[in-house]
Amino acid sequence: MSHPDAGVFPHATGAAEAMVKSHQKEEPLKLYSGWFCPFVQRVLLVLLEKDIPFQYIEVNPYHKPQSLLTLNPRGLVPTLQYDNKPLYESTVICEFLEDAYPSATPKLIPSDPYTKARMKIWIDFVTSRILPAFHRFLQFQPNSASETGIEKVRADFLEQMKQLVQEMDAEGRYFLGKELTLIDLMIAPWAVRLWLFDHFKGGLNMPKGEPWVERFEKWRQVVEKRDSVVDSTSEKEHYLPIYQRYADDVAQSEMAKAIRQGQGVP
Amino acid sequence: MSHPDAGVFPHATGAAEAMVKSHQKEEPLKLYSGWFCPFVQRVLLVLLEKDIPFQYIEVNPYHKPQSLLTLNPRGLVPTLQYDNKPLYESTVICEFLEDAYPSATPKLIPSDPYTKARMKIWIDFVTSRILPAFHRFLQFQPNSASETGIEKVRADFLEQMKQLVQEMDAEGRYFLGKELTLIDLMIAPWAVRLWLFDHFKGGLNMPKGEPWVERFEKWRQVVEKRDSVVDSTSEKEHYLPIYQRYADDVAQSEMAKAIRQGQGVP
Repeated sequence: MSHPDAGVFPHATGAAEAMVKSHQKEEPLKLYSGWFCPFVQRVLLVLLEKDIPFQYIEVNPYHKPQSLLTLNPRGLVPTLQYDNKPLYESTVICEFLEDAYPSATPKLIPSDPYTKARMKIWIDFVTSRILPAFHRFLQFQPNSASETGIEKVRADFLEQMKQLVQEMDAEGRYFLGKELTLIDLMIAPWAVRLWLFDHFKGGLNMPKGEPWVERFEKWRQVVEKRDSVVDSTSEKEHYLPIYQRYADDVAQSEMAKAIRQGQGVP
Repeated sequence: MSHPDAGVFPHATGAAEAMVKSHQKEEPLKLYSGWFCPFVQRVLLVLLEKDIPFQYIEVNPYHKPQSLLTLNPRGLVPTLQYDNKPLYESTVICEFLEDAYPSATPKLIPSDPYTKARMKIWIDFVTSRILPAFHRFLQFQPNSASETGIEKVRADFLEQMKQLVQEMDAEGRYFLGKELTLIDLMIAPWAVRLWLFDHFKGGLNMPKGEPWVERFEKWRQVVEKRDSVVDSTSEKEHYLPIYQRYADDVAQSEMAKAIRQGQGVP
């Protein structure tokens, strides 16, 4: 029986298509990807920033090939194949790349232990707080049984964003200061998808003029223009039908289902 | 208004009381603790194994003192005070201790990047899969509206345990092989609380004789006897009233509430 989400566009487009084409050559390091998946984009951002050679393998995660399932029984993307062994979980993979390719620059993890630990706390905040709030907003249905209105899920999302942004270095440009670090890349895939709320949910309605919003916009403008971000982003028209299913709350991804059940990131 | 969980016994007992007394001296590194909290125990295990000097500060997490809230607005224990700055999230703190005290032995994080990353994936599995399953079993109520029986939540917990144990090195003694590493300590606080299921829930009913159960029992016997584990464990009689409230599903901790709402680790 075909999966209800199976009709996704089959490959990256736009700038991302060129990036994918330039990473087709056989390499020992292989990334099993879904072109539209923000968790995959996290890993791509680190690989591209550090210019680590890798082979891009497009997988339709709703038609999981046996080669992926053999490597990772949960069949999720991103899965990294390194030395013929699997790694998964986007943040684990990204930290691994820093360890396994010590001469690749830029260094994305601060060398100071306290700064590094604080960065990890806030990366965890992105995954465990921001992303569920993002999806509760995106998947919100006005006629759901709950009494919650869209204003509530929008406000919850903005409140979580505010908490995150208030941790940013005041001067910038990046989260921790002058240099790009891992946390910028761990947020970026969702930052470049914020147009979804304008398109599907009547606007993000950030309170313009508030200091945290200005700080966020300054951060977003810098991060959106990074080559790694541009080169891992496909054309908007191909994201639309995929996110339409989230906006209608009928998507069948693990993330969509978990949010529908009131849970966090699966 | 007094908090419904506020009547917890005020301090560690037994072997843990002696350990706490020997860590009262003022030290720059301070651990805000709850004597009964398994997440605090994770951090204690690392501090004790590495013999890192620290000051133990008992906090009733249901009566949070302002000094803790100033340091950590979420007011959770464990909170570590390092160089007058806060750190929280048990796994972040434990990795931090390895980085910040590089000469402290034993080293708990493998130097090989792949082994380290794989360890992190399974530590994440403990936190995101095992602990919710542990609490769904512990907080299960037979007359809840759901049709789920206790057999189901017990079987789910054992299935998650089996998945974890099957990742252990076949020879042992520890998870990754001959040497103790961080993952052993990240599991241990719940391993030494498994008697809760015998006391409150009619037994854990591990299928004796199955290879994974034998592997687990071998691991448990070694880990339970580590000085760090013995010295961070209080007397059973004082855990009982605390866990009675979990077993009756009336506990008001963040963990208890999250599980009651069908969510994961908060």
